[in-house]
Amino acid sequence: VKAMTIELYEDRSDVTITAYVLDDSRELLAGKRRPAVIICPGGGYMFCSDREAEPVAIRFAAMGYHAFVLRYTVHSQGGGGVYPKPLLDLAEAFVLINEHAAEWHVDTERIAICGFSAGGHNCAMYSVYWHDSAVTGLLDVDPKTLRPVACILGYPIIDLGLRVDDPALRTAHESLMTAYLGTSEPSSEMLDAVNPAKHVTAQTPPTFLWGTASDSLLPIENTLTMARALAGVGVPFEVHVFEQGPHGLALADQATAYSIKEVDADAGKWVGLAEEWLKKRLALSLEEESAWAAMAKGDHGFQRT
Amino acid sequence: VKAMTIELYEDRSDVTITAYVLDDSRELLAGKRRPAVIICPGGGYMFCSDREAEPVAIRFAAMGYHAFVLRYTVHSQGGGGVYPKPLLDLAEAFVLINEHAAEWHVDTERIAICGFSAGGHNCAMYSVYWHDSAVTGLLDVDPKTLRPVACILGYPIIDLGLRVDDPALRTAHESLMTAYLGTSEPSSEMLDAVNPAKHVTAQTPPTFLWGTASDSLLPIENTLTMARALAGVGVPFEVHVFEQGPHGLALADQATAYSIKEVDADAGKWVGLAEEWLKKRLALSLEEESAWAAMAKGDHGFQRT
Repeated sequence: VKAMTIELYEDRSDVTITAYVLDDSRELLAGKRRPAVIICPGGGYMFCSDREAEPVAIRFAAMGYHAFVLRYTVHSQGGGGVYPKPLLDLAEAFVLINEHAAEWHVDTERIAICGFSAGGHNCAMYSVYWHDSAVTGLLDVDPKTLRPVACILGYPIIDLGLRVDDPALRTAHESLMTAYLGTSEPSSEMLDAVNPAKHVTAQTPPTFLWGTASDSLLPIENTLTMARALAGVGVPFEVHVFEQGPHGLALADQATAYSIKEVDADAGKWVGLAEEWLKKRLALSLEEESAWAAMAKGDHGFQRT
Repeated sequence: VKAMTIELYEDRSDVTITAYVLDDSRELLAGKRRPAVIICPGGGYMFCSDREAEPVAIRFAAMGYHAFVLRYTVHSQGGGGVYPKPLLDLAEAFVLINEHAAEWHVDTERIAICGFSAGGHNCAMYSVYWHDSAVTGLLDVDPKTLRPVACILGYPIIDLGLRVDDPALRTAHESLMTAYLGTSEPSSEMLDAVNPAKHVTAQTPPTFLWGTASDSLLPIENTLTMARALAGVGVPFEVHVFEQGPHGLALADQATAYSIKEVDADAGKWVGLAEEWLKKRLALSLEEESAWAAMAKGDHGFQRT
């Protein structure tokens, strides 16, 4: 694997892509291009959580896909709201990957996105806005290079306007709105603009959503709202809501856990389900004839040169 | 992840360790050491197959373990038999990892080994010989740093003396014996010495074995012979023999496949079974209190510095 971190902008060190580019081998894809997954970690637009970064990328790499972690623009002291920068960062990530596609053997027509919590919001926003002139107009590229082929959303924030009654959660919610929009009292027009469920179209990619019904930090209504919107437009989607589990489970296994509280065998089933679902869009281009048969015929080099 | 290839000997470029060292993070293990898995790919002691190398390492890395691929000594033109070099290469891999343990955050008391086919033979040999003076006598280290805590064997070669009736397979079998022992007609004493099933002791680590009953290249008797030997001595072991599937399935999914013939959903279940089994020996040291709770108390730094 080639693992490297690249700054997305010349004049800023805070927005980076960490690439996990799988090695090519004559025994595997033999020069054929691999699909890729871009991961947006969560963190309330205030940071990008390591728990939803490298271990998730490695899990997608284990499925046979190149993986990229995008550390998008997050709120900094006195910086105002970050919107729409995180959305544009994701577009820039597509541009960067397209630029390196030949070198990295990336199948640029099959790039999926995967986000968690606020990163899920960013991916959902991208899903509905990637073809909008507000995004494409800023980039000197063919808009179709920006198209995500599939979207995976883990316990995503969808509707910032959802009522928050619990006073303890209200603070977190206001911090989120301030981080993203620069104000804890955004207008309803603004809330609508940043609610991806309101902007789903036929151009929105097939989407896999998962979360836990018992999430006490972010209501599962967010996930269900997005699912309803996708259903309304006829975009293919899949939803898995597990009964139990806190917010922020990531892979829900030890690889993404700080404590035993972030491990949940039930919720962890989302990974296998997403793996099967992703294969419908990202399956690798395998040969028909076995490696052994190819070797016997001599048109395949097994030995290391 | 830090990915790098290191030559194991100063004067040879053919024996290497490719390391996949996971990043430390305050949100994950926060400086605590991780267990590791060393992988020996197969290839009949004539090459080391890429299909049983990086993708397998990445799958173990996805479980939360550091992973290392050992490309051990294989047969070269006119080079005679490689035995016992591959065995000693594995011991040297333990030495190298121990030397870098602090830098890489490796829990050196919990290093597992995993091999496929000929690589499985090498791991099984190491399992029974790691504490033998033939190994320890050559290395200036505390023998207990060489101890494997667990061993995973995929369709391993165990008994080179098993009868091969099929003439088509006889050639492959003779090549294997020549590559490993330097002769296609080894003595029975030699065959016994390199049959790990004959040398199992209480010092042999817990072992997980898997293969397919329909393997037409290497009889499943090899796997069963090793399992019987482990049972005889009371070493903990687990065996999964799937009814169907060719030799060399590796992960049996697209990540290790050249063609659709190397994909098998049934046999692919070995990975999840091995993951659960490994956790009994290698489970990460997670905290009791959640990351959120630790953050709220301020004894845990979430934001990137």
